[in-house]
Parts: sequence; C-alpha cells; structure tokens
Amino acid sequence: MNSGGLDRPVAALSADAKAVLRPLPAGSVRFGPGFWSERVAVNNERSLAAGLERITASGVLENLEIAAGKADGPYRGDLVFLDTDAYKWLEAVSWSLRDGSAPELLESAKAVIELIRAAAEPDGYVNSYTTVVRGGERWADLLNGHEMYCAGHLIQAGIAHRRATGETGLYEVAIRFADVLVAEFGEHGRRAGYCGHPEIETALVELYRESGTRAYLDLARRMVDLRGGGLIGEHRFGRHYFQDTTPVRETRSLHGHAVRALYLAAGVTDLYLETGDEQLLTALRAQWADLVRGKAYLTGGAGARHLDEGFGDAFELPADRAYTETCAAIALMQWSWRMLLATGEAQFADMFERVLYNGFLAGVSLDGSRFFYVNPLQVRPDSTLGPGGRQEWFHCACCPPNVMRTLASLSHYVATVDGDGLQIHQYASGSIRSPQGFGADVRTGYPFEGGVSITIPGEAAGEWTLSLRVPRWARGRVEAALDGWPIDVGTADRLRITRRWRGGERIEVGFPVEPRLTVADPRVDDARGCVAVECGPLVYCAEQVDQDADIDTLVLSGAAELGAEREIGGIALPTVRVDATAAGSAAPEEDWPYRTLGAAAETGVRGRVTAVPYFAWANREAGAMRVWLPHRAVRSS
Amino acid sequence: MNSGGLDRPVAALSADAKAVLRPLPAGSVRFGPGFWSERVAVNNERSLAAGLERITASGVLENLEIAAGKADGPYRGDLVFLDTDAYKWLEAVSWSLRDGSAPELLESAKAVIELIRAAAEPDGYVNSYTTVVRGGERWADLLNGHEMYCAGHLIQAGIAHRRATGETGLYEVAIRFADVLVAEFGEHGRRAGYCGHPEIETALVELYRESGTRAYLDLARRMVDLRGGGLIGEHRFGRHYFQDTTPVRETRSLHGHAVRALYLAAGVTDLYLETGDEQLLTALRAQWADLVRGKAYLTGGAGARHLDEGFGDAFELPADRAYTETCAAIALMQWSWRMLLATGEAQFADMFERVLYNGFLAGVSLDGSRFFYVNPLQVRPDSTLGPGGRQEWFHCACCPPNVMRTLASLSHYVATVDGDGLQIHQYASGSIRSPQGFGADVRTGYPFEGGVSITIPGEAAGEWTLSLRVPRWARGRVEAALDGWPIDVGTADRLRITRRWRGGERIEVGFPVEPRLTVADPRVDDARGCVAVECGPLVYCAEQVDQDADIDTLVLSGAAELGAEREIGGIALPTVRVDATAAGSAAPEEDWPYRTLGAAAETGVRGRVTAVPYFAWANREAGAMRVWLPHRAVRSS
Repeated sequence: MNSGGLDRPVAALSADAKAVLRPLPAGSVRFGPGFWSERVAVNNERSLAAGLERITASGVLENLEIAAGKADGPYRGDLVFLDTDAYKWLEAVSWSLRDGSAPELLESAKAVIELIRAAAEPDGYVNSYTTVVRGGERWADLLNGHEMYCAGHLIQAGIAHRRATGETGLYEVAIRFADVLVAEFGEHGRRAGYCGHPEIETALVELYRESGTRAYLDLARRMVDLRGGGLIGEHRFGRHYFQDTTPVRETRSLHGHAVRALYLAAGVTDLYLETGDEQLLTALRAQWADLVRGKAYLTGGAGARHLDEGFGDAFELPADRAYTETCAAIALMQWSWRMLLATGEAQFADMFERVLYNGFLAGVSLDGSRFFYVNPLQVRPDSTLGPGGRQEWFHCACCPPNVMRTLASLSHYVATVDGDGLQIHQYASGSIRSPQGFGADVRTGYPFEGGVSITIPGEAAGEWTLSLRVPRWARGRVEAALDGWPIDVGTADRLRITRRWRGGERIEVGFPVEPRLTVADPRVDDARGCVAVECGPLVYCAEQVDQDADIDTLVLSGAAELGAEREIGGIALPTVRVDATAAGSAAPEEDWPYRTLGAAAETGVRGRVTAVPYFAWANREAGAMRVWLPHRAVRSS
Repeated sequence: MNSGGLDRPVAALSADAKAVLRPLPAGSVRFGPGFWSERVAVNNERSLAAGLERITASGVLENLEIAAGKADGPYRGDLVFLDTDAYKWLEAVSWSLRDGSAPELLESAKAVIELIRAAAEPDGYVNSYTTVVRGGERWADLLNGHEMYCAGHLIQAGIAHRRATGETGLYEVAIRFADVLVAEFGEHGRRAGYCGHPEIETALVELYRESGTRAYLDLARRMVDLRGGGLIGEHRFGRHYFQDTTPVRETRSLHGHAVRALYLAAGVTDLYLETGDEQLLTALRAQWADLVRGKAYLTGGAGARHLDEGFGDAFELPADRAYTETCAAIALMQWSWRMLLATGEAQFADMFERVLYNGFLAGVSLDGSRFFYVNPLQVRPDSTLGPGGRQEWFHCACCPPNVMRTLASLSHYVATVDGDGLQIHQYASGSIRSPQGFGADVRTGYPFEGGVSITIPGEAAGEWTLSLRVPRWARGRVEAALDGWPIDVGTADRLRITRRWRGGERIEVGFPVEPRLTVADPRVDDARGCVAVECGPLVYCAEQVDQDADIDTLVLSGAAELGAEREIGGIALPTVRVDATAAGSAAPEEDWPYRTLGAAAETGVRGRVTAVPYFAWANREAGAMRVWLPHRAVRSS
C-alpha cells in the first residue's frame, strides 16, 4: 500500500484498484496562462484569504476554541456542522500550495490545525457542537447530527494536508477520529449505523488509500451495506431524503437531497474502485442513467426542489426554482471523476466538463469574493427571491469552501494514464508530465476557442498512446492533424494516436466552438418552446442588462451568431446574439393571463437577444436572467 | 345593531356597512336537486361525521380534555393550532343544520362545545397548547404561536353556532376570549401586536357585526394599522412570509404565505366594509390586480411555492409544483365574496366561481371522505410525490374542516340584494327568497349545461330588478329570453331585467357551455406551447387512466369536442376529447434530454386525449395528470 508520499492526488487509487484509468500525481499538470490558471489564481490568492476571514467572523474557529477550552461562551450559530467550513478551507489551502497560495495562509492553517487538535476529546473524537452544545453526548441523532459528515471532511482535510505538505499533524487527528468511528460503527463496534448526510464513505476509502489500513475500507463498506435498512429514523421528507429507502446495491435511481445522493454515489464508486464489487457498479450505472435521462439541468446542475434540496421527478427541471446547489455540482464532479477512473468512458468526462464550466463555475463570482448557494436558470423581473446577487458567505456556508477546495485541486482532474499512455480529458493551457514518461504541452484558448495545440515534449519520447477526449457537443465535427497531416477523427469520443514519439511532434485539434441552439426533450416542461444558447462547453444566458427590451417579452427568431466581446469581471467574454421579436411596451396589460386559443397574436418589434456565458452571470447589476429563451422555430413538442 | 337573530349569514354586514350589495339571510337560498345539492349533502351527511371521528382520533378533542383537566397525558401532536380543527368542524356543523346534517352530530357538537368551555382559563382565554404545553404562558411568540389565529376560528364557530341554533354557549366562550384580546391588544391594552397568521381580523369584524360591540371592530382596525411595523419578529423566510414588510394601506401586491395573505385580505375587506376607509379599498384593489395579473392559477388556485407555502413572483406558476393549498382557495373565495359585496363588480363573483368549481372543489373527493392539501396542475408518471391520492386527514389538518365549513355555508354565496332587487351570482337549481320580497326559482344543469331557467314566484310580485351574472367566459355569447321574447345581452357582465313582476314570468338564459382551448400569457413559462381545456366554468384535466398512450408523449392537434359521459365517483361527467399525436412507445430512449435545434422531429401515431373535470381527478386509480397539454397550434410565444 501507499504510505503517504507527497504528490498523491485526489482519489489516489490503491495499486490494485479496479480502475480503467488512473489519476496523475498532484503536480503532474501545471496550468499555463489561460482561462483556468486565472480562475485558480483568483481562488488561491483571493478566495482563500477571504475564507479565513469568514471562518473567523462567523464563529467557526471560535466554536473550536470553546471546545478546546480556550474560550468561553455559547456555541456560535445554530448549525451542527460548522466545523466543516474550517475543514474544507484547510483542504483548499493544502491543495493550493502547489499552485501558489499566499504563504501567510500556511501559517494560519497551522494555527487552525492546532485548534482542531486541541478540540479533540481524549479518545480522538472531534466535533465542537457535540462537545459544546450536547455536553459530549455522541451519536444521539445519526439522521440529523452530521457527526460522521463532519468526520469525513476532517479526514479529507487531514489527507490533503499530509499529501501537500508531508506534515502529519492534521492527518493524525483524522486517523484517531477514524479509529473512534471503527470502534463505534465497525463490524465489532458498539452499534450499527450510518450518517444521515453521506460523505464519510468517500473519506474513509481515501483514508484506506492513504494509510493502507483495511479497517477504514471495511467501515465504508459496512455503512454502504447497512444503508437502506432504516436504522437511523424517519424524516418529515421521507427516507428518500437521506437515501435510506432501498439498499444501495438495489438503488436504480437518484432521489432525495441532491448533495447527499451525489456524495453517496461518489463514495460508493470509491468503494467499487477498491473492492471490484460489480453489484455496486451496476447500481451506479443505473443511477447515472437516471440522472442524465431526466434529472440533470443543461448546466449540469442537479436538484430541482427547494423544499428538500432534492431531486425532482424525471424531467421536473424548473428554471426559476432550480435549486442546483453549488455543492451538488461539486459532488457530481467528484462522482463523474470516479466513474471516469472506473470505466474509462468519455461520457463521465463530458459531464465533468459540463458541470465545471457551468453549474459549478457560476457558483463563485469572477473576483472570487462572492458565492451562490442556489443556481437558478431563470430570474424573473423584480423577483422576491432577491436581486440575483451572490453573497460573501451564508448562514449555512457549505458551498464557498467547497468551491475553494475544488478549484485548488482542479489540476488533478485534467488527465489520466493507463497502461497504454496518457488521456487528456479537460483542455487547458499548461504542461502534463506523468511518472510513466508520458507528457504533453497544451496551448489553447478553450473554452472560448476550439483550437487545441499539443506538443510532445522530448522527455516523453517512446511508444505510447495519446488520447484526447472529443466532447459530446463536438463529436463528428472535429478536425485534427499531426504535424500538419490530417487525422480522420470520425464520430469517435476520443482521438487516439499511438506511435513512437520522438518529441517535438505537434497535434492540432479544432473543436467546433461556434454558437448553437439547444432544445430539450418535450417532457422537460420548463423548456417547452424554448432554446438555450450553447457555445463549446459553455451554456449561455441572457441577462436583462444586455437587452434593449424586457427579457420576458423577447421571442427568438434567428440563428445564433457570435457577437462582440464584452468585458465582465475583468474577463473578455464572447457574446452570442440571436434575432428576436419583442412584444414591446405598447402591449396592453392584460388583467387575466389566460385567453381562448385563436385570439390574434401580438405584433412585435424586431430586436436581438445578447447572451453571455452562464458562469459570468450576476457579476454586473442585478436583474432578470434566462437560460431558456422562447424561439419561434421550436414546436410545442 | 344586530343582536344575533337567527338566519344571519356569513359576513352579515351591519346596517351602515359600506356595501354595494348585501348578503341574503341564511336559508334564503335552498338548493334543489342538482349539482350543488349533491355536493352539500355529501358534505353534511358524510364529511361531517368523518370529521368528528378525525378530531377524536387525532387527539384534538383529547387536548381540550387535558386542558380542561378532564384527562391526563401529554399534548397530542406537535402543532400549536390543533384546536382550530374542532372550531372549524363546529362551524361546519352549525351552518349545516339548515340543509340537514345528521341529527346526532348536533349532540356531539354540544359535547365539544362543553369541552371548549371547560378548557377555557378563568379569564376566558382558550388554547389547549398554551395551557397544556406552555404552562399557561401566553403571547410568547406572536409570529409562530397562532394564538389569535385559534381565537379567530373559535369566534367564527361561536358566531355560526349562535346564528344557526340561537344557543349562546359557544358564542359566550368566544366573547370572553375576545374580551381578553381587547384587554391585551386593544388601544388601552398591555401590548401592541398582531398575529403571525392573519385570520383574527375577519373574525373580530364579524363579532362586531354579531354583538354590536365596537371594541372588536377597533381591535381589528388596530391590528391592521400596526401590521407592517415589524413588531413580532423575523422569520427565516423573511417578513414577507407573514405580510409584515409594509403597512397594509401601502401594500400593493401579494407576497408570502398564500393562506395568510388571503385571510388578511378578506379581513381587511371586512374592515373596509364596516369603516368605509377608502385607503383600504385602494390597497385591496391593487392587491387583487396583482393576483389576477400573474399569481392566480387557471384553477383559481393560489400559492406557487412549496418551501414557504407562498406566492411566487408574477407569472411563476409551476404546474407540477403548484402548492395551491385548499385553504388558500377557501381564503380566496372569502375575499372574493367580500369584494363583491363592497363593489358589486362581477369580476369578484367570476373569481369565486372559478375557485369554487376548480381549485376548491378538487380539494375533496367526490364521496366526501378524502382531501387534498396541495392541488397540483400536473402529476408526472411515477412521481415521488406519491400516487396523487387524497388523504383522510393530515398531520396539519387545516384543510378538511375548512372545506366542510365552506360547503355547509355555500348557499350563502349564491345571491345578494341591493335597493333595486336581486342579484344571482352563482347558478344552482333551487329557490331564492329575500326578505325584501324578491325571489326566483332556478332550474339548471349547470355547470355541465349552460341553460338556466328562472321562474319568478308569485310572492315576488312588484317592481324590482333581477340581475344575472354573465360569467366572463360566456360574455358576448349569451342568449336570453323573457317569456319567449329574446333579450339582447350584448357583452354586458350582467343581464339586468327591471320590471313590475306579476309572478310566473320565465327567464331562459343560455350560456355557451362548450369545450374551449385556453392558452396562457407567454410569461407563464409553465404553460408555454400548451393549452388547457375548459368547458363552462370547469377547468378540465387529462388523467392517465383515460388515455391510450403515455400522457407525457401526447401533443394535441385538434379542437376540443364533447366526448361521452364518464361516471366518476357516482357522478356522470361530460368528457372532452381532442385529437392528438402520441410519440408512441417506439420512441428511442434518449440518454440526454437536450439536443441541437434542427434535428428531425419524431413521427407519432394519431390518437386522442380525453379530459375530465379537474375537480373530479384522483377519484379513480392513481396516475399521471395534466391540466396544461402541449398543442401544435400554440406558438412558443
């Protein structure tokens, strides 16, 4: 087993993992100047520093101080899982070290780690809410207590910190807590149970990978085996809410709280990877099919209902009331990545890309300072939901530090290796080097431009296969050449080039990044009669600030064309324009919005809709916004 | 002032009320054989008896027994307003007496009244939750405590029981409680406050009408004057949730919890009626305009969001996630009736009709035994929301006894009088006699048939005006005759006939009850590209059980035609059929529900959609249901 060497990445599979593809060591991918290097720099330089301020001001650190006996006073806030804000921030700081976060953050991180260590109870259990509010009473409410959820984030932070720094302080705290969990919930433990909010599963498998201690893998498996057994109580939203209605191996669809369902799926995929239990993979594939068939938004967002933060029925995908929590996007990226490792199938990297550029990236402002918890696909004029503005932090602040740890580790998700060579899944300027001797230098204007230029470095000489993902939106329309000689890609989902590389070869790929109009299955009632603008991997949206007429009076009539660039948040972004008709302000105000079919249609004035990338919305003045736009060419079915 | 004579109806205006129209005494309208006599009989014979069982089994009566010191044990249930289930049931039994409820219910009602009297604290305060759970601590949480809401229902029950029976037992309990309220919250009371859940306002005005005691009217006014001042705290959904963001006189739109907003509007209308305060009417008219412009469902349902049981933004009217609580429909009927009395305008009776036959009546099964709390306009196949079935009772059971009291008093809402004569607003077979000597005998197959035959009884001889509402859906298409001589109704919203009646005259009116297809304003995103079937006052829906193909694959292509009658729940109901195309089961299962515009459309097989009245849905086997149906003829805008 591995024993904690530096450079181990997110999801550092064990040597005998049942994986088709394997991740690269952290540091194998270095972003060069381009889209993602900027986004990651904003995260590592600005968001992380602001995050420290927020976990200080919101009382998260104070709660740990109180638990450690270093401060007095009542627990700050009323949520049981506030410790995780600190854990996720620590994980983010850890992963960011390689790409350069502000050095003073490392010192702050050490202080926070010391605080967590001091807050631990003598046997290793850590949870400031339990210690301060519950007088130390543990496991009283597995459904709502989030104690294992907190443990999971602590474990992930400890692993990341060890992998990034080689230091073991936080890791040891995590190990001691994990041993408490094994003693309590393991096969020979005091009780059978699992957490109402899954997350511990993926953390325990990772701890097995990091430590080699099989007990952690066994505990993860035990929790997955027991789930569905109704051991931890009922919830007013039903046992669907916390994925406890059916055994995991028999679960064929995604229900309930979206973040819980997707974290669980990621953890079960980890368990499959380390056990090869095919029943798990069968269930995961069915759940995936259920997701992509009718429960995923065009943006890759997941979760259609506000009431229970949950999945809706198939095709229930409201635009205005989309919940699509930022954490659900992150959980889906985690699951997608693990399914990609398990199967090698491009569809999982396709989904990762869709979420990354849209549902996930919209969750943080372009300056890295403000966040969305909920990511709707429509905001109505004068909405009572507020002006569509992001917030610096939240009462329940799970999303912001989750964004931070994801961006800080984004380079881990770019490429993989297998026995034959190197697979590039996400396109970003930078260099890729694998320990096996594979490598590539990438230059691209992706996601705004479709050209990707790859040079094989001299140090990667040898016979191996370079595999480049062809995104689903580009399939069948890709041009490619090797040193100027055309390559026929056909409709394949990968461009694979196997040869004896000498170094210096140049592969040019052209993905068709031009605007396109997308329609939805008729069963997606909320998109009926509408189109969405997409361009490359980006979903676009129309914000009121860019239109000449009331956004809700506009009906598209033309094709999508590239418009002038527009600078938003310091980034020059291509816009897309579509001819449209606006009913205009002369339209009479009806006093009842229903009329008999056949009444004369209103005449409108010609105009245009200007759309900008969805990830960039709500970075200017607040106002209405739409992803789905009515279009005359779309039939009602 | 009035001193509690028998026959006083719901909203028994005082002599100097600022009303254009005045209600008839209870008993003035007697339903003859027909649609509403059946519905009322089912309510009075079956629902009321079942209601007694439910308020017994659910612990509502037991809580009162405990409060009265006649039983031990903890409070049953966890809701603070359970007493109101008993109060609303008592109100229903009281109103039902004239139309004949089972006589043994009256004895049961007496026992319940005795229990309430015994549960009262020495000064007259009554609330079993306060007494049993809170150790008698009152008014600790005006926002969530519902103490005045409970008082309001007690007052309404006491008034109804006195009006129906002449007995004063429950009325005296109500008066004593009202005096406690005046002492606590009146101008010279101990504190300034109002209830987080409005309802007390309309009850206090009614108690003023019944007792002549001006202090009750003053207290209602004071609560309305103070509201918007932020005196009772904050809520996680914001102060919008309980209508406390702006003073009532300045409130121009409807926000927050729909039942609260609509009960408040009804109470404010009562206050206008008894004070003539024109600022109130101005605000109410603006709120009404906001409702009908974009916050009312086609069914007359109100409340678009599950999370806060609240209104959405304008035009946010999801079909599948419509909340449209049955109590909101009832509150809207109460408000509509009071606005009709205040203004005499037909639009308010139009809305009453729309809610009555659709959003309200769907709330109870045809056999009177099961209820809906939430009334969606769409249920998807295999919905996790459940099979679309009604329930016998609810954890929060506000709706069932609210339905009962409404149906038990339905005859009060049929007609009014003014100085000139009699106005008939709702059409039902039966007789109408007013103390002023106006009268009419009505025969009609409404709502299924459009013919209404009215005979003037001999006892109504004299010169007066008969006014018949022309429903909005019929306007401009009505045929009428007096003793065979045609009358030109034109596009008026009322057919008015002024003459010296001798008795025996016959007025025949024909409303165009034929199926029609209705489209929505393009801003109602959830209805884009769709039609709804309406027929007369009835909204129709398509239930899966009546279709040959999957309901979500059907696209309408034709006009609406009457189909064969279908018996549902013992009632023969006309169906409506529309030609349609079904994609059929041969359609390939897509693995991603979004595709680029321009891909070939699927070819379908021809078929038909069969629709039944919405009020009758979910009375057979459970399954999918749609009100809005895609139609080829509807443009996307």
